[in-house]
Amino acid sequence: MQKISEIGDLIKLISRLPGLGPKSAKRIVLKLINNREELMKPMANALAQVYKNVTRCNTCGALKSILVGCDNCENEKNNYNKICVVENIADQWSIENSSIYKGYFHILGGTISSSGQRKEDLLINSLVERVKKNNIEEVILATSATVEGQTTAYYIQDSLKEIQVKVSKLAQGLPVGGEIESLDDGTLFSAFKNRNGIGNNSD
Amino acid sequence: MQKISEIGDLIKLISRLPGLGPKSAKRIVLKLINNREELMKPMANALAQVYKNVTRCNTCGALKSILVGCDNCENEKNNYNKICVVENIADQWSIENSSIYKGYFHILGGTISSSGQRKEDLLINSLVERVKKNNIEEVILATSATVEGQTTAYYIQDSLKEIQVKVSKLAQGLPVGGEIESLDDGTLFSAFKNRNGIGNNSD
Repeated sequence: MQKISEIGDLIKLISRLPGLGPKSAKRIVLKLINNREELMKPMANALAQVYKNVTRCNTCGALKSILVGCDNCENEKNNYNKICVVENIADQWSIENSSIYKGYFHILGGTISSSGQRKEDLLINSLVERVKKNNIEEVILATSATVEGQTTAYYIQDSLKEIQVKVSKLAQGLPVGGEIESLDDGTLFSAFKNRNGIGNNSD
Repeated sequence: MQKISEIGDLIKLISRLPGLGPKSAKRIVLKLINNREELMKPMANALAQVYKNVTRCNTCGALKSILVGCDNCENEKNNYNKICVVENIADQWSIENSSIYKGYFHILGGTISSSGQRKEDLLINSLVERVKKNNIEEVILATSATVEGQTTAYYIQDSLKEIQVKVSKLAQGLPVGGEIESLDDGTLFSAFKNRNGIGNNSD
Protein backbone atom coordinates (compact mmCIF):
# COMPACT_ATOMS: atom_id res chain seq x y z
CA MET A 1 0.00 0.00 0.00
CA GLN A 2 1.40 3.39 -0.96
CA LYS A 3 0.56 6.32 1.27
CA ILE A 4 1.21 8.85 -1.48
CA SER A 5 -1.57 8.39 -4.01
CA GLU A 6 0.40 9.80 -6.97
CA ILE A 7 3.08 7.15 -6.47
CA GLY A 8 0.57 4.37 -5.92
CA ASP A 9 -1.16 5.30 -9.19
CA LEU A 10 2.11 5.30 -11.12
CA ILE A 11 3.20 1.93 -9.70
CA LYS A 12 -0.17 0.43 -10.61
CA LEU A 13 0.05 1.66 -14.21
CA ILE A 14 3.66 0.57 -14.70
CA SER A 15 2.93 -2.90 -13.36
CA ARG A 16 0.42 -3.33 -16.21
CA LEU A 17 3.20 -3.07 -18.80
CA PRO A 18 4.39 -6.30 -20.45
CA GLY A 19 7.02 -8.18 -18.45
CA LEU A 20 6.60 -6.03 -15.35
CA GLY A 21 4.88 -6.70 -12.02
CA PRO A 22 4.37 -4.74 -8.79
CA LYS A 23 7.94 -5.37 -7.59
CA SER A 24 9.70 -4.26 -10.76
CA ALA A 25 7.28 -1.33 -11.05
CA LYS A 26 8.37 -0.17 -7.60
CA ARG A 27 12.02 -0.45 -8.58
CA ILE A 28 11.32 1.59 -11.70
CA VAL A 29 9.46 4.28 -9.76
CA LEU A 30 12.34 4.53 -7.27
CA LYS A 31 14.79 4.92 -10.14
CA LEU A 32 12.60 7.65 -11.62
CA ILE A 33 12.33 9.44 -8.27
CA ASN A 34 16.07 9.28 -7.72
CA ASN A 35 16.65 10.70 -11.21
CA ARG A 36 13.98 13.39 -11.36
CA GLU A 37 15.63 15.70 -13.85
CA GLU A 38 17.62 13.23 -15.95
CA LEU A 39 14.94 10.56 -16.31
CA MET A 40 11.51 11.34 -14.83
CA LYS A 41 11.08 14.72 -16.47
CA PRO A 42 12.24 13.68 -19.97
CA MET A 43 10.12 10.54 -19.75
CA ALA A 44 7.00 12.46 -18.76
CA ASN A 45 7.67 14.78 -21.70
CA ALA A 46 8.43 11.95 -24.14
CA LEU A 47 5.21 10.14 -23.23
CA ALA A 48 3.18 13.32 -23.59
CA GLN A 49 4.81 13.99 -26.98
CA VAL A 50 4.05 10.49 -28.28
CA TYR A 51 0.48 10.77 -27.01
CA LYS A 52 0.04 14.15 -28.67
CA ASN A 53 1.95 13.68 -31.92
CA VAL A 54 2.00 10.01 -32.88
CA THR A 55 -0.99 8.37 -34.46
CA ARG A 56 -1.78 5.57 -36.90
CA CYS A 57 -1.91 6.59 -40.56
CA ASN A 58 -5.42 6.03 -41.96
CA THR A 59 -4.02 4.99 -45.33
CA CYS A 60 -1.21 2.54 -44.57
CA GLY A 61 -1.68 1.83 -40.86
CA ALA A 62 1.89 2.79 -39.94
CA LEU A 63 2.65 5.09 -37.05
CA LYS A 64 3.18 8.64 -38.12
CA SER A 65 4.10 11.87 -36.44
CA ILE A 66 1.44 14.48 -37.15
CA LEU A 67 4.30 17.00 -37.27
CA VAL A 68 6.00 15.46 -40.31
CA GLY A 69 3.33 13.23 -41.86
CA CYS A 70 3.52 9.56 -42.80
CA ASP A 71 6.97 8.59 -43.95
CA ASN A 72 5.69 5.20 -45.08
CA CYS A 73 3.04 6.25 -47.58
CA GLU A 74 2.94 10.00 -48.10
CA ASN A 75 6.37 10.40 -49.65
CA GLU A 76 6.64 8.29 -52.77
CA LYS A 77 10.09 6.71 -53.04
CA ASN A 78 11.58 6.24 -56.49
CA ASN A 79 13.24 2.93 -55.88
CA TYR A 80 10.36 1.27 -54.02
CA ASN A 81 8.15 -1.08 -56.01
CA LYS A 82 7.04 -3.55 -53.33
CA ILE A 83 4.53 -3.46 -50.49
CA CYS A 84 4.95 -5.79 -47.54
CA VAL A 85 1.63 -6.45 -45.80
CA VAL A 86 1.84 -7.18 -42.06
CA GLU A 87 -0.67 -7.57 -39.26
CA ASN A 88 0.65 -5.04 -36.80
CA ILE A 89 3.35 -2.53 -36.01
CA ALA A 90 5.43 -5.02 -34.04
CA ASP A 91 5.71 -7.12 -37.21
CA GLN A 92 6.75 -4.05 -39.20
CA TRP A 93 9.46 -3.21 -36.67
CA SER A 94 10.79 -6.80 -36.70
CA ILE A 95 11.08 -6.83 -40.47
CA GLU A 96 12.59 -3.34 -40.57
CA ASN A 97 15.20 -4.32 -37.98
CA SER A 98 16.21 -7.41 -39.92
CA SER A 99 17.09 -5.18 -42.94
CA ILE A 100 15.98 -8.02 -45.21
CA TYR A 101 13.32 -6.01 -46.96
CA LYS A 102 13.41 -2.60 -48.60
CA GLY A 103 10.07 -1.20 -49.68
CA TYR A 104 6.75 0.10 -48.46
CA PHE A 105 4.82 -1.41 -45.57
CA HIS A 106 1.10 -1.81 -45.15
CA ILE A 107 -0.11 -2.50 -41.62
CA LEU A 108 -3.54 -4.12 -41.50
CA GLY A 109 -4.12 -3.62 -37.80
CA GLY A 110 -5.15 -7.20 -37.10
CA THR A 111 -6.50 -10.23 -38.90
CA ILE A 112 -9.90 -11.28 -40.12
CA SER A 113 -11.94 -12.99 -37.38
CA SER A 114 -9.44 -12.38 -34.61
CA SER A 115 -11.27 -10.88 -31.64
CA GLY A 116 -14.25 -9.90 -33.76
CA GLN A 117 -12.20 -7.67 -36.04
CA ARG A 118 -14.20 -6.85 -39.15
CA LYS A 119 -12.74 -6.90 -42.68
CA GLU A 120 -13.67 -3.23 -43.08
CA ASP A 121 -11.39 -2.24 -40.19
CA LEU A 122 -8.36 -3.84 -41.79
CA LEU A 123 -7.24 -1.19 -44.32
CA ILE A 124 -7.59 -3.70 -47.15
CA ASN A 125 -9.39 -1.27 -49.48
CA SER A 126 -6.65 1.30 -48.99
CA LEU A 127 -4.08 -1.39 -49.79
CA VAL A 128 -5.77 -1.99 -53.14
CA GLU A 129 -5.74 1.78 -53.78
CA ARG A 130 -2.06 2.05 -52.89
CA VAL A 131 -1.12 -0.82 -55.19
CA LYS A 132 -2.95 0.86 -58.08
CA LYS A 133 -1.60 4.33 -57.41
CA ASN A 134 2.06 3.67 -56.65
CA ASN A 135 2.96 1.36 -59.55
CA ILE A 136 3.60 -1.52 -57.19
CA GLU A 137 5.10 -4.63 -58.81
CA GLU A 138 4.85 -7.04 -55.90
CA VAL A 139 2.67 -7.41 -52.81
CA ILE A 140 4.35 -9.60 -50.18
CA LEU A 141 1.85 -11.02 -47.72
CA ALA A 142 3.75 -11.33 -44.41
CA THR A 143 0.85 -12.32 -42.19
CA SER A 144 1.37 -14.89 -39.44
CA ALA A 145 1.32 -18.61 -40.16
CA THR A 146 -1.85 -18.95 -38.11
CA VAL A 147 -5.36 -19.78 -39.33
CA GLU A 148 -6.37 -16.11 -38.99
CA GLY A 149 -3.20 -14.84 -40.66
CA GLN A 150 -3.55 -17.21 -43.59
CA THR A 151 -7.28 -16.49 -43.96
CA THR A 152 -6.46 -12.80 -44.11
CA ALA A 153 -3.73 -13.41 -46.69
CA TYR A 154 -6.16 -15.38 -48.83
CA TYR A 155 -8.77 -12.62 -48.59
CA ILE A 156 -6.22 -9.98 -49.62
CA GLN A 157 -5.03 -12.10 -52.53
CA ASP A 158 -8.65 -12.29 -53.66
CA SER A 159 -9.09 -8.52 -53.31
CA LEU A 160 -6.07 -7.96 -55.57
CA LYS A 161 -7.03 -10.40 -58.32
CA GLU A 162 -8.30 -7.71 -60.71
CA ILE A 163 -4.98 -5.86 -60.58
CA GLN A 164 -1.88 -6.62 -62.60
CA VAL A 165 0.50 -7.26 -59.69
CA LYS A 166 2.59 -10.15 -58.41
CA VAL A 167 1.34 -11.43 -55.04
CA SER A 168 3.59 -13.61 -52.87
CA LYS A 169 3.56 -14.87 -49.33
CA LEU A 170 6.35 -15.82 -46.94
CA ALA A 171 7.71 -19.35 -47.16
CA GLN A 172 6.70 -21.86 -44.50
CA GLY A 173 9.08 -24.53 -43.25
CA LEU A 174 11.78 -25.21 -40.68
CA PRO A 175 12.83 -22.18 -38.67
CA VAL A 176 16.61 -21.65 -38.59
CA GLY A 177 18.02 -23.73 -35.72
CA GLY A 178 14.79 -25.72 -35.54
CA GLU A 179 15.25 -29.36 -34.50
CA ILE A 180 13.01 -31.80 -36.29
CA GLU A 181 12.02 -33.58 -33.08
CA SER A 182 10.71 -30.40 -31.51
CA LEU A 183 8.61 -29.20 -34.46
CA ASP A 184 4.85 -29.39 -34.52
CA ASP A 185 3.02 -31.40 -37.19
CA GLY A 186 1.87 -28.32 -39.09
CA THR A 187 5.42 -27.02 -39.54
CA LEU A 188 6.65 -30.48 -40.58
CA PHE A 189 3.82 -30.74 -43.07
CA SER A 190 4.73 -27.36 -44.61
CA ALA A 191 8.41 -28.27 -44.68
CA PHE A 192 7.69 -31.49 -46.57
CA LYS A 193 5.18 -29.91 -48.93
CA ASN A 194 7.48 -27.01 -49.82
CA ARG A 195 10.68 -29.07 -49.99
CA ASN A 196 13.23 -27.83 -52.51
CA GLY A 197 15.14 -29.94 -55.00
CA ILE A 198 18.90 -29.76 -54.42
CA GLY A 199 20.17 -32.01 -57.20
CA ASN A 200 19.05 -35.03 -59.11
CA ASN A 201 21.28 -38.04 -58.66
CA SER A 202 19.43 -40.07 -61.28
CA ASP A 203 20.52 -37.57 -63.99
CA MET B 1 16.64 2.82 -35.67
CA GLN B 2 13.28 4.46 -35.26
CA LYS B 3 12.08 6.73 -38.06
CA ILE B 4 9.68 8.60 -35.78
CA SER B 5 11.85 10.60 -33.39
CA GLU B 6 9.24 10.81 -30.61
CA ILE B 7 9.08 7.01 -30.47
CA GLY B 8 12.83 6.61 -30.67
CA ASP B 9 13.26 9.01 -27.75
CA LEU B 10 10.71 7.17 -25.63
CA ILE B 11 12.27 3.76 -26.34
CA LYS B 12 15.72 5.10 -25.40
CA LEU B 13 14.44 6.48 -22.09
CA ILE B 14 12.49 3.37 -21.15
CA SER B 15 15.47 1.12 -21.89
CA ARG B 16 17.42 3.02 -19.21
CA LEU B 17 15.01 1.78 -16.51
CA PRO B 18 16.18 -1.05 -14.24
CA GLY B 19 15.65 -4.52 -15.68
CA LEU B 20 14.72 -3.24 -19.14
CA GLY B 21 16.67 -3.16 -22.40
CA PRO B 22 15.96 -1.97 -25.94
CA LYS B 23 13.83 -5.04 -26.77
CA SER B 24 11.57 -4.87 -23.74
CA ALA B 25 11.37 -1.08 -24.14
CA LYS B 26 10.03 -1.60 -27.67
CA ARG B 27 7.45 -4.08 -26.41
CA ILE B 28 6.38 -1.60 -23.76
CA VAL B 29 6.08 1.25 -26.27
CA LEU B 30 3.97 -0.95 -28.56
CA LYS B 31 1.70 -1.81 -25.64
CA LEU B 32 1.36 1.89 -24.83
CA ILE B 33 0.61 2.75 -28.47
CA ASN B 34 -2.01 0.02 -28.72
CA ASN B 35 -3.65 1.27 -25.50
CA ARG B 36 -3.50 5.02 -26.03
CA GLU B 37 -6.45 6.02 -23.89
CA GLU B 38 -6.39 3.27 -21.25
CA LEU B 39 -2.64 3.23 -20.60
CA MET B 40 -0.54 5.83 -22.42
CA LYS B 41 -2.62 8.85 -21.44
CA PRO B 42 -3.02 7.94 -17.74
CA MET B 43 0.65 7.08 -17.54
CA ALA B 44 1.73 10.38 -19.06
CA ASN B 45 -0.53 12.11 -16.55
CA ALA B 46 0.65 10.02 -13.60
CA LEU B 47 4.30 10.71 -14.40
CA ALA B 48 3.64 14.42 -14.75
CA GLN B 49 1.75 14.41 -11.43
CA VAL B 50 4.57 12.64 -9.60
CA TYR B 51 7.10 15.02 -11.13
CA LYS B 52 5.03 18.03 -10.14
CA ASN B 53 3.72 17.00 -6.72
CA VAL B 54 6.10 14.50 -5.14
CA THR B 55 9.31 15.62 -3.53
CA ARG B 56 11.63 14.61 -0.69
CA CYS B 57 10.79 16.10 2.71
CA ASN B 58 13.66 18.31 3.90
CA THR B 59 13.12 17.23 7.49
CA CYS B 60 12.76 13.46 7.41
CA GLY B 61 13.83 12.58 3.86
CA ALA B 62 10.61 10.69 3.07
CA LEU B 63 8.68 11.30 -0.12
CA LYS B 64 5.80 13.68 0.34
CA SER B 65 3.07 15.08 -1.81
CA ILE B 66 3.21 18.86 -1.78
CA LEU B 67 -0.60 18.76 -1.90
CA VAL B 68 -1.01 17.06 1.49
CA GLY B 69 2.36 17.58 3.21
CA CYS B 70 4.64 14.99 4.79
CA ASP B 71 2.68 12.16 6.37
CA ASN B 72 5.84 10.82 7.99
CA CYS B 73 6.94 13.81 10.06
CA GLU B 74 4.44 16.67 9.86
CA ASN B 75 1.56 14.94 11.61
CA GLU B 76 2.59 13.83 15.06
CA LYS B 77 1.10 10.42 15.88
CA ASN B 78 0.11 9.76 19.47
CA ASN B 79 1.13 6.15 19.60
CA TYR B 80 4.49 6.55 17.83
CA ASN B 81 7.58 6.72 20.04
CA LYS B 82 10.24 5.19 17.77
CA ILE B 83 12.20 6.42 14.76
CA CYS B 84 13.65 3.91 12.30
CA VAL B 85 16.66 5.36 10.46
CA VAL B 86 17.22 3.98 6.94
CA GLU B 87 19.53 4.87 4.08
CA ASN B 88 17.01 5.36 1.31
CA ILE B 89 13.37 5.20 0.27
CA ALA B 90 13.64 1.64 -1.04
CA ASP B 91 14.66 0.53 2.47
CA GLN B 92 11.70 2.40 3.96
CA TRP B 93 9.29 0.70 1.54
CA SER B 94 10.72 -2.76 2.33
CA ILE B 95 10.30 -2.28 6.07
CA GLU B 96 6.82 -0.77 5.64
CA ASN B 97 5.74 -3.70 3.48
CA SER B 98 6.94 -6.24 6.03
CA SER B 99 4.59 -4.68 8.65
CA ILE B 100 7.19 -5.55 11.31
CA TYR B 101 7.69 -1.99 12.45
CA LYS B 102 5.21 0.70 13.46
CA GLY B 103 6.64 4.17 14.00
CA TYR B 104 8.29 7.10 12.30
CA PHE B 105 10.93 6.76 9.59
CA HIS B 106 13.95 8.91 8.95
CA ILE B 107 15.54 8.56 5.52
CA LEU B 108 19.16 9.69 5.42
CA GLY B 109 19.49 9.76 1.64
CA GLY B 110 22.71 7.74 1.54
CA THR B 111 25.64 6.80 3.72
CA ILE B 112 28.79 8.57 4.84
CA SER B 113 31.59 8.19 2.30
CA SER B 114 29.52 6.39 -0.31
CA SER B 115 30.06 8.14 -3.63
CA GLY B 116 31.46 11.25 -1.99
CA GLN B 117 28.28 11.92 0.00
CA ARG B 118 29.01 14.44 2.75
CA LYS B 119 27.75 14.08 6.31
CA GLU B 120 25.97 17.41 5.99
CA ASP B 121 23.80 16.06 3.16
CA LEU B 122 22.53 13.19 5.27
CA LEU B 123 19.74 14.80 7.35
CA ILE B 124 21.52 13.78 10.57
CA ASN B 125 21.04 17.15 12.25
CA SER B 126 17.33 17.07 11.54
CA LEU B 127 17.19 13.54 13.00
CA VAL B 128 18.63 14.89 16.27
CA GLU B 129 16.03 17.67 16.22
CA ARG B 130 13.19 15.23 15.61
CA VAL B 131 14.29 12.98 18.46
CA LYS B 132 14.33 15.95 20.83
CA LYS B 133 11.05 17.42 19.63
CA ASN B 134 8.83 14.33 19.33
CA ASN B 135 9.53 12.62 22.68
CA ILE B 136 11.15 9.69 20.93
CA GLU B 137 12.04 6.76 23.19
CA GLU B 138 14.05 4.64 20.75
CA VAL B 139 16.09 5.26 17.60
CA ILE B 140 16.50 2.08 15.55
CA LEU B 141 19.46 2.28 13.19
CA ALA B 142 18.49 0.16 10.16
CA THR B 143 21.42 1.00 7.91
CA SER B 144 22.96 -1.71 5.73
CA ALA B 145 25.44 -4.22 7.11
CA THR B 146 28.16 -2.72 4.91
CA VAL B 147 31.20 -0.72 5.98
CA GLU B 148 29.48 2.52 4.89
CA GLY B 149 26.19 1.61 6.57
CA GLN B 150 27.87 0.71 9.85
CA THR B 151 30.11 3.79 9.77
CA THR B 152 27.00 5.91 9.31
CA ALA B 153 25.24 4.13 12.18
CA TYR B 154 28.23 4.75 14.42
CA TYR B 155 28.31 8.43 13.49
CA ILE B 156 24.58 8.82 14.23
CA GLN B 157 24.96 7.03 17.57
CA ASP B 158 27.68 9.55 18.42
CA SER B 159 25.47 12.47 17.35
CA LEU B 160 22.73 11.28 19.72
CA LYS B 161 24.89 10.66 22.78
CA GLU B 162 23.88 13.92 24.54
CA ILE B 163 20.19 12.97 24.32
CA GLN B 164 18.30 10.70 26.73
CA VAL B 165 17.15 8.12 24.16
CA LYS B 166 17.64 4.42 23.58
CA VAL B 167 19.64 3.70 20.41
CA SER B 168 19.57 0.23 18.86
CA LYS B 169 20.68 -1.32 15.61
CA LEU B 170 19.41 -4.33 13.65
CA ALA B 171 20.80 -7.72 14.63
CA GLN B 172 23.40 -9.34 12.41
CA GLY B 173 23.54 -13.07 11.89
CA LEU B 174 22.19 -15.87 9.70
CA PRO B 175 19.50 -14.79 7.24
CA VAL B 176 16.39 -16.96 7.39
CA GLY B 177 16.94 -19.94 5.09
CA GLY B 178 20.69 -19.24 5.01
CA GLU B 179 22.85 -22.35 4.73
CA ILE B 180 26.03 -22.27 6.78
CA GLU B 181 28.16 -23.51 3.87
CA SER B 182 27.11 -20.64 1.63
CA LEU B 183 27.64 -17.80 4.12
CA ASP B 184 30.54 -15.39 3.93
CA ASP B 185 33.05 -15.09 6.76
CA GLY B 186 31.67 -11.74 7.95
CA THR B 187 28.18 -13.12 8.45
CA LEU B 188 29.52 -16.23 10.20
CA PHE B 189 31.63 -14.02 12.47
CA SER B 190 28.56 -11.92 13.40
CA ALA B 191 26.45 -15.03 13.95
CA PHE B 192 29.03 -16.48 16.35
CA LYS B 193 29.66 -13.22 18.15
CA ASN B 194 25.95 -12.50 18.66
CA ARG B 195 24.98 -16.10 19.51
CA ASN B 196 22.09 -16.44 21.94
CA GLY B 197 21.96 -18.73 24.95
CA ILE B 198 19.12 -21.29 24.67
CA GLY B 199 19.53 -23.16 27.96
CA ASN B 200 22.30 -24.21 30.33
CA ASN B 201 22.76 -27.94 30.66
CA SER B 202 25.25 -27.61 33.49
CA ASP B 203 22.58 -26.10 35.75
